[in-house]
Amino acid sequence: MSTALILVDVIASFFHPDQPNYYPEATKVLDPIAELLAAARDRDTLVVHAVERHYPGLTDFEHQKLPQHCEIGAMDSSYVPGFEPTDRNREVEVPKRRYSGFYATDLHLLLREQSVHRVVVVGVKTNVCIRATIQDAFAGGFDVLLPEAATNSNRPHLAAATLEDIDRYFGQVVDLAEARTAVADR
Amino acid sequence: MSTALILVDVIASFFHPDQPNYYPEATKVLDPIAELLAAARDRDTLVVHAVERHYPGLTDFEHQKLPQHCEIGAMDSSYVPGFEPTDRNREVEVPKRRYSGFYATDLHLLLREQSVHRVVVVGVKTNVCIRATIQDAFAGGFDVLLPEAATNSNRPHLAAATLEDIDRYFGQVVDLAEARTAVADR
Amino acid sequence: MSTALILVDVIASFFHPDQPNYYPEATKVLDPIAELLAAARDRDTLVVHAVERHYPGLTDFEHQKLPQHCEIGAMDSSYVPGFEPTDRNREVEVPKRRYSGFYATDLHLLLREQSVHRVVVVGVKTNVCIRATIQDAFAGGFDVLLPEAATNSNRPHLAAATLEDIDRYFGQVVDLAEARTAVADR
Amino acid sequence: MSTALILVDVIASFFHPDQPNYYPEATKVLDPIAELLAAARDRDTLVVHAVERHYPGLTDFEHQKLPQHCEIGAMDSSYVPGFEPTDRNREVEVPKRRYSGFYATDLHLLLREQSVHRVVVVGVKTNVCIRATIQDAFAGGFDVLLPEAATNSNRPHLAAATLEDIDRYFGQVVDLAEARTAVADR
Repeated sequence: MSTALILVDVIASFFHPDQPNYYPEATKVLDPIAELLAAARDRDTLVVHAVERHYPGLTDFEHQKLPQHCEIGAMDSSYVPGFEPTDRNREVEVPKRRYSGFYATDLHLLLREQSVHRVVVVGVKTNVCIRATIQDAFAGGFDVLLPEAATNSNRPHLAAATLEDIDRYFGQVVDLAEARTAVADR
Repeated sequence: MSTALILVDVIASFFHPDQPNYYPEATKVLDPIAELLAAARDRDTLVVHAVERHYPGLTDFEHQKLPQHCEIGAMDSSYVPGFEPTDRNREVEVPKRRYSGFYATDLHLLLREQSVHRVVVVGVKTNVCIRATIQDAFAGGFDVLLPEAATNSNRPHLAAATLEDIDRYFGQVVDLAEARTAVADR
Repeated sequence: MSTALILVDVIASFFHPDQPNYYPEATKVLDPIAELLAAARDRDTLVVHAVERHYPGLTDFEHQKLPQHCEIGAMDSSYVPGFEPTDRNREVEVPKRRYSGFYATDLHLLLREQSVHRVVVVGVKTNVCIRATIQDAFAGGFDVLLPEAATNSNRPHLAAATLEDIDRYFGQVVDLAEARTAVADR
Repeated sequence: MSTALILVDVIASFFHPDQPNYYPEATKVLDPIAELLAAARDRDTLVVHAVERHYPGLTDFEHQKLPQHCEIGAMDSSYVPGFEPTDRNREVEVPKRRYSGFYATDLHLLLREQSVHRVVVVGVKTNVCIRATIQDAFAGGFDVLLPEAATNSNRPHLAAATLEDIDRYFGQVVDLAEARTAVADR
C-alpha cells in the first residue's frame, strides 16, 4: 500500500492575520503539518499541495456563496512560508476551485498513476475543504487518514461534528504518530 | 430558472422498522416530502429519485466503512410505499452507489439537459447522503435549497452541524413553504 | 491482472433489419462476440453490457446530432436475442447515454472496484461507440484489447481508420484467439 | 449563445523541426489559427489554451502507449512563438495530460461558468487530441465547430476519416469564415 500526503489550503488566506479567512487557531496545525511534511519528504512520499486558485476576473460558481477569493497570483492564495512545494518530482501542486481537491482536477488520476491507495489529509478548514476532499477520496476508493492535530476550524463545534462524521462514514481520525507512520510507508 | 426536486434515499433501509438503518424520527420527513412531491407532480416539475442500488455479490469501495447494503432487488433498497417513481417522463430514478447522488451517475448531465438551475434536496440522512449530494450540486453550479422539515438524521447534533455548514457554504436552508414555491416554479 | 469483457451496444438498433441503424454486416460480429462471451462466462470473468438507454420524452444533448433513439423500453434498445445479461453477479448492465460507456456512468468505478486492469471491448460501431469507449478506457489507465473480428461499422473506411488510430494511440487491435485468452484470464 | 475558442496543443512538440512529433504540414494551420485568435481577442471572446503538461519523473498512464513527452518546463511543451496566452482575463491555460482537453481538467466547469454553449476547436492532431476533445465537448452538451483549415495531421487519411466522423456524430466541420463569425459572437 502506497500513501500520499495531501495538504489542503495551507495558504495565507487562513493563516495570515491580514487575510480575510484568518483565524488565530489555524496556526496550531502548522507544527503537526510540518512534522508530517518532513517525514514524507524524508521517504520521498508523494505530497500534494491542493490549493485554491481561481481565475481573476472570471465568473465562478462559488461566487454564489463566497466573495471573490484566492485568485491566481493574489496574496491570499500564496503559500504559508515554509509550506511551499519543493522541486522534488513527488511533490505536486493541484490547483482547485472547489472545496474538494478532487473536483475538476487531476488529483484522482494522479493518485492512481502513482499507485496510491491511502491518503493522509491535513490542513483547513475541517468542516469545509478537508471534509469535501475526504468525501471524494473515500468515494474514489482511497483509504483516508485524518490526523486530528493537523486540522481545525474557526468553528470548533462544526469541526467536531465533521470529525465524528468522517470517522463513521469516510475514514479514520488518527493521532499524529499514526499519520507519521503512514506517510513514511510510501 | 427551472427547478428539480431530488429525493435522496426515501427507501426502506431508513424508514422500515425491520431494516438496518431504521430510526424512528426518519418518518417525520415523509409528510413534508409528500407535500413537495405532490406540488412537483402537479406542475410536472422534474423529480429525481436518487436511491442506493449496489451490485449483489460484487466488491464495492463503500464496504471499507459500511456493511453490504441496499443491493439491487433487496428489501432495504425498496421504495417507501407511496414514494415510488410514477411513469411521468419528468420523474427519473438515478441509482447511486455513493453518498452523493452525483458520484458516478448521470445526474449532473440530466439536470443540465433539462435546463435545471436550482435543486430542492430532501430525504435522509442530513449529515451523510443529503450533505454529500448538496456538496456536489453546489460544486456543479446549481442553486441548492434544503427544506429543514424534509430532512433529518438519527444523530440530531450532526444534522444540526450540517445544516449550519450548508447554509454557510453550499446553499440555503429554507422552510417548507419556500421549497414548495420553488418546486412549483418549473 | 484481471480482465473484463465489455459488450458495446449489442442491441436491436444495429442488428435487427427493422431498426433504424441496422446494417447487414453488423451480424458478422455476433459469432465472435458469442465465443468471447462464452469464454468469459466459463471463467466467471466480469462482463459489462454497455447499452444505449435514453429517457423517454426528455431533452438529451445527443439530439443535437441524432434523432431520438434507444429509449428505455423501446424496441431498438432491446438486446439481440442470446446476448442478454445472465443473472451471474459478475455480469452487469451499464446504461449509457453517450457514445462512450464511461461517460456519466459508474463503469470506471465498477472496473476499479473489481480490480480490473485490462478490458476487451467488442461490439458496434467501431468508429463511434467502440472508439469513444476505448478513448476513455485508455485515459483511465486500462489496457485495451480490441479483437478485430468482433467489431465493425456500416462505413468500413471509417472503421479501418479507427482501428489504425486505436492501435497507435489507445490500445491493441488483436485477433480473436488473443482476446479469448485474455477474457479467460480473470 | 456564447462561444469560446479552444486551441489544442499549439506547442513546439508538433511545430518545431527539432521536436519529436514535428511534421512539416503542421505549420499550415498556424495562419488560420492566428486569424481566429485575433478575431477572438478583438471581441474579448474566451480563449482556452489546452496544452500537454505532464509531471516530470512521475508515472503517467499515457506511457503505456507513448514515450515520455511534454513535461512541465520542457522544450516540447513550450508554446509556438506568437501563440502564448496573453494576460487578458478571458484567456486561460488548461494543462492536460490526456488527448482530450476535458479529461481530468476544469475545462467543462470553466466553459459552463462563462456561459459558453459553443466551442470552436483548432490545432493538432485532427485524429488524436482534436477528436478526443471534441468527443467530450459534444458529450457535455456544447455545440462544436471545427474549421478544417485550422487542423491537420501527419496522417492525412486519418484526419479525413475523423473529419467525416465529426461532421456526422459530434459537430460541424466548417470553413474559416464561419468559424471567424462564431468567435466574434461572444
